Amino acid sequence: MPNTRMNRLLEILREKGIEHVLLTSPGSICYFARHAAAIETGHSPFAPLATALVSVQGEEPILFIADGEPLNDIAAGFVIRKFQGYTYEHPLKGLEEITTLLVNHFNRLPRSAVGVEMGGLPAFVLEGLRSSCRQLEFKDITYDLAQMRVIKDEDEIRAIRSALELCDVGQATVKKCALPGLTELEVFSEMQKAMEQVAGTRLPILADLVSGVRTADVGGNPGPFRLGEGDLVIADIVPRRQGYWGDTCNTCVVGESNAEQKKVFQGIESALYECIDRVRPGARACDLDSFLRQRVASLGGAYPHHSGHGIGVTYHEEPRVVPYNQTPLRAGMVIALEPGIYFEGKWGLRLEHTVLVTHAGAEILSQFRHTL
Amino acid sequence: MPNTRMNRLLEILREKGIEHVLLTSPGSICYFARHAAAIETGHSPFAPLATALVSVQGEEPILFIADGEPLNDIAAGFVIRKFQGYTYEHPLKGLEEITTLLVNHFNRLPRSAVGVEMGGLPAFVLEGLRSSCRQLEFKDITYDLAQMRVIKDEDEIRAIRSALELCDVGQATVKKCALPGLTELEVFSEMQKAMEQVAGTRLPILADLVSGVRTADVGGNPGPFRLGEGDLVIADIVPRRQGYWGDTCNTCVVGESNAEQKKVFQGIESALYECIDRVRPGARACDLDSFLRQRVASLGGAYPHHSGHGIGVTYHEEPRVVPYNQTPLRAGMVIALEPGIYFEGKWGLRLEHTVLVTHAGAEILSQFRHTL
Repeated sequence: MPNTRMNRLLEILREKGIEHVLLTSPGSICYFARHAAAIETGHSPFAPLATALVSVQGEEPILFIADGEPLNDIAAGFVIRKFQGYTYEHPLKGLEEITTLLVNHFNRLPRSAVGVEMGGLPAFVLEGLRSSCRQLEFKDITYDLAQMRVIKDEDEIRAIRSALELCDVGQATVKKCALPGLTELEVFSEMQKAMEQVAGTRLPILADLVSGVRTADVGGNPGPFRLGEGDLVIADIVPRRQGYWGDTCNTCVVGESNAEQKKVFQGIESALYECIDRVRPGARACDLDSFLRQRVASLGGAYPHHSGHGIGVTYHEEPRVVPYNQTPLRAGMVIALEPGIYFEGKWGLRLEHTVLVTHAGAEILSQFRHTL
Repeated sequence: MPNTRMNRLLEILREKGIEHVLLTSPGSICYFARHAAAIETGHSPFAPLATALVSVQGEEPILFIADGEPLNDIAAGFVIRKFQGYTYEHPLKGLEEITTLLVNHFNRLPRSAVGVEMGGLPAFVLEGLRSSCRQLEFKDITYDLAQMRVIKDEDEIRAIRSALELCDVGQATVKKCALPGLTELEVFSEMQKAMEQVAGTRLPILADLVSGVRTADVGGNPGPFRLGEGDLVIADIVPRRQGYWGDTCNTCVVGESNAEQKKVFQGIESALYECIDRVRPGARACDLDSFLRQRVASLGGAYPHHSGHGIGVTYHEEPRVVPYNQTPLRAGMVIALEPGIYFEGKWGLRLEHTVLVTHAGAEILSQFRHTL
C-alpha cells in the first residue's frame, strides 16, 4: 500500500524540479512514517540519527532505522532497512553507518536534486553525501514540509484529540491540587502522574506551571514555591501522545477568588470564546490576533506573546496567530488560541483552547472547561 | 578570567593546525560554558540552535545565546552575545540569525581552520559558513573533545556526585514502593516525584523500570504492568543535574526473595564489588569487562550489553568498558560499572555503581547500597 502522504510530498517537489527526498527531523519521521522518536535525551549516544526517510524517484520509499528503535508503529508503504545503532562488540559508529547507507543509496543516481531538511540534518551526513554524490544538488524543503502539514488529516486530528484528553486529565488534577501549602513542583508531579497513568506510559510533557507573583512572568517550569491562599496558578500543559502534541492552558485560584480575579478571568474567557466564534475558513490569523489583543487591552492589560499557533507533530507550527500573519484559515487547520494578561510584579492569567477549523467554523478539540 | 578548559582545547587543536573553534552540541556547551540546555523537547521551534560557542585565535571566546535562554549559569571567560530566538512580531528566524552572526564572525578571517562538531551541527549552519567563508576549512573535532572530557575536573566530580544523590533518592523510593498491586508506572511516578522534590526542579531522567518477566529483556520504559509477589524490579536511574548525569542500577524483589534470587543477587553483587576493587590507574577497560563477563558466566548466565561506560555531560562516553577497549584507566575518569544476568523468558537482574578512578584505586560516588 503506497504512502499517500509521501506521494503528495513528491508531487509538490516534482513541480519544483526536486526528484528525491531525505527526511531526518523527528516531526517529518512521525508525519510520514508514524514513528515517534524518543525526545527526552537529545541525540542518543547509540544512534545520533536513529531514523532517516528516503525516497528516490521511481522506487519505494525506505525508512532507515537503528536496530534499537521499536518497529511496531511504522506506517504502511515503506521498506524498512535496519542499521546497527548499539553494539558493545565494536566502537559505536551509528552516524557513520547511516551516512554510508545513504551515500550508497544516492551515489548511483544521475544528475538530479534531493530535498532535505537543512535545520534538522547533521552536517556530518550532508558532508558525506556532498563529497560522494557530486552530481546531486541538495535543496532545503523545510518550508514546503511545514506548508504541507498545515492541513491535518483525519488520523492526525484523532491523535491531537487523544493528546488533548491528557491535557483534560492534567487540568483537572491541577485544579484539584491547587491547595495552600503544596509547592508548584508537587502539583506538577501529581499532574504528570495522573496523565501518565491514563496514557499507560511516560510522556514528553512541556508545561508552564507557575503560581503567585510568578504568574506575572507568563510562564516557566514548576519550582519549590509554595501555593498560598488566593494565589493564581497558571497551568499550560503540552503533552505528546502518538507523536502528536496537545495544548491547553487554564488559570485557577488557590482557595477563594476575589472580585478582580473573577472579573479579569471572565474577560479573558469571553475574549477567547468570542475569538473561537470568529474562527472559520477565510478568517485571517492576524485578525484573530488583533481581536484578542484589543479585548485584552480593554481589560487594562496586554501580553508579550503570540495569540496562538498551529499544532501537530511539532508543538508550534503554522499558522502562527500573530500580528504579521495574513494567512487565511482553512478547514483542517488545528490552532491553539491563548490570550493572556500580565500585571508586572503582581499577577497574570492565561486561557487556551486548541480548535479545529471546520467548514462551519471551529470545533474545540478538548472536553475541559476553564474554571478559575 | 580566562576559561582554562577552553584554553586547553585550543592548545590541543593548535597542534593539529586548527586555529578556531565552533561548538554546538549540548555536551560541549555545558562542558565549556556550564550552560545546561533544556533537552525535553528536541529542537525548539523558537531557536533550533539556541547556543553556539565560538573561539577565534587571539580573541576572547564568545557564547552566542538565544534571548530566551537563562544566563545565570554561564561560566566565566566568555563574551555573551544574545540573538533573537522568540518573537511574535516577525517570522521566527532563529537559525538564520545565528548563522548570520557566525558568518559575520568568521568571514573576516584569513585562510585557516575551524574545529566543529559535525554530528551536532545543523547542515544549515555549515552550508551558510561554507558558502560565505571559502577561505576556511572546517574540521571535525568530535573525537578530540571526547578524549579531552575523559578526565574529570573537581567541579565535574562534584556535579556527578550531586546527580548521584538523586539516584540514591530514586533507589530508596523504588525499594519502598515495590509493593504487590502497584504498576511499574506508579512506582516510576513516585520515584520521579521524590527525586524532583529534592532537586527542586523538573529533571531529565532516563530510566529502565521493568518488573517480572520483563526484567529478562534488560530494560525498558515503565508501563501499566502490575507488580506481583516475588517479582524482581530492575531500576536503572539516570538523572541529569547541573548538566551532569548520574547512573545507578538496583534490582529488588516484591515481598520475599527466594533462594535462587538471593544466590544470583549475591553473585552479581560480589562480582561488581570485586570489579571495583580492580579499578585503578593502569587497569584496562577490556580487562574489567572480561572479569565481569567471566564472573557472570560462572553464575550460569550472560549479558548482551556493555559492562560499563564513562559518564559526564553525556550519559555514555569514553572509556566504554567493553571487550575491544584496551584503554588503560587513569585517575580522574568516572565510570559506571553494570554487570547483569538475564534468563530468557524468565527474569533478569542488574546492579550498577558509578565510581571515580583515584590514584589509590576507586571511590564509589553514591551513598546507596544495593539491596534485593
